[in-house]
Amino acid sequence: MKKHCKTFVLSTLSGVLLAASVGAFAQQAPKPETLIKWRQSAYSVLGWNSSRIKASVEGQYNKDEVIKAANTIAALANAGIGSLFAPGTEQGKGWHDTATKPELFKDGKRVGELAGDFTREANELAKVAATGDAAAVKTQYGKLSKTCKACHDDFKIKD
Amino acid sequence: MKKHCKTFVLSTLSGVLLAASVGAFAQQAPKPETLIKWRQSAYSVLGWNSSRIKASVEGQYNKDEVIKAANTIAALANAGIGSLFAPGTEQGKGWHDTATKPELFKDGKRVGELAGDFTREANELAKVAATGDAAAVKTQYGKLSKTCKACHDDFKIKD
Repeated sequence: MKKHCKTFVLSTLSGVLLAASVGAFAQQAPKPETLIKWRQSAYSVLGWNSSRIKASVEGQYNKDEVIKAANTIAALANAGIGSLFAPGTEQGKGWHDTATKPELFKDGKRVGELAGDFTREANELAKVAATGDAAAVKTQYGKLSKTCKACHDDFKIKD
Repeated sequence: MKKHCKTFVLSTLSGVLLAASVGAFAQQAPKPETLIKWRQSAYSVLGWNSSRIKASVEGQYNKDEVIKAANTIAALANAGIGSLFAPGTEQGKGWHDTATKPELFKDGKRVGELAGDFTREANELAKVAATGDAAAVKTQYGKLSKTCKACHDDFKIKD
C-alpha cells in the first residue's frame, strides 16, 4: 500500500472511530432539546398527578386515585430531574421554549434547597396518601404545593 | 326591583352558576388535548427512564441511576395511564398529533392484557433493580422492553 493510501485508510479509520465514540457519547449525553423535552414532560406528569389529588381534596375523595398520583409524584421527586437541567440546556426548545429562568443555572445552592423541600414533602404525601386520611392529605398537599410555588416564583418564566 | 331588572339579575346569576358548573366539570374532565399532552408526557418520561437503564446495562452500570429509573417506570405503570385514553381523545394534538392508532380505543381486552404485562414486568424490574444485580437487571429490562414493543406494534403509529 502506498503511503498516501495508508494515510487515507488511517484517517478514514480514525474518522469511523471518532464517529463511533461520538455515537457512544450521544447515548450517554442526550441532545439539549431532548433533555428539555424530558423535563417539560416530567413537569407535565407532575401537573397531571397534582390535578388528580386536587380533584380529590376539593371534591369527591378517591383514595386509590390519590395513592397512585402521590406515588407518581414521589417517584419523580426522587428520579433525579436535576440531571435534565444539564449545562447546555439554559436556552432552547423541547415541546416549547424552555420556561426555566437563566438564574436557575447559576444558583445551585438555592435550587438544591428547593428541590430538597419538594422531595421531602412529596415523600411525606405518599405516606399520608396510603392512610386514606383525606384531611391529612389536604394539609400535606398544601405543603407540597407551596414547595412547587416557591420554585416557580424564583425560577419559572411566567406564562 | 323592576321586572326586567329581576330578569337580568336572574339571567346573570344563572350565567355565573353555569360558568361555575362548567368550571367544576372542566376540573373533573380535562380537555382532550390536555389528556393527550399528559399521556405523551408520560411516555416521554418512560423513554427518559428507559434510556437511563439502557445506558447502564449496555455501558457502565450505575446502581442508583437504575433504581431511580426503574422506580419511576414502575410508578407510571401503576399510575393509571389508561385514564389518559378517555373517550374523545381518539384523535387530536397534545404536544404533537396523537401517535395512538384508532384500534386502541376499540380493543379494551387486548389493551388490558398488554397493560397488565407492562405493569407486571415494570414492578419486577423495580424489585430487581434494588438488588443491584446488573445481569438480572439486563434480563428483566429485556422482558420489560418486549412488553413496550408488543403494544407499540399493535397500537402506535410508526414515526
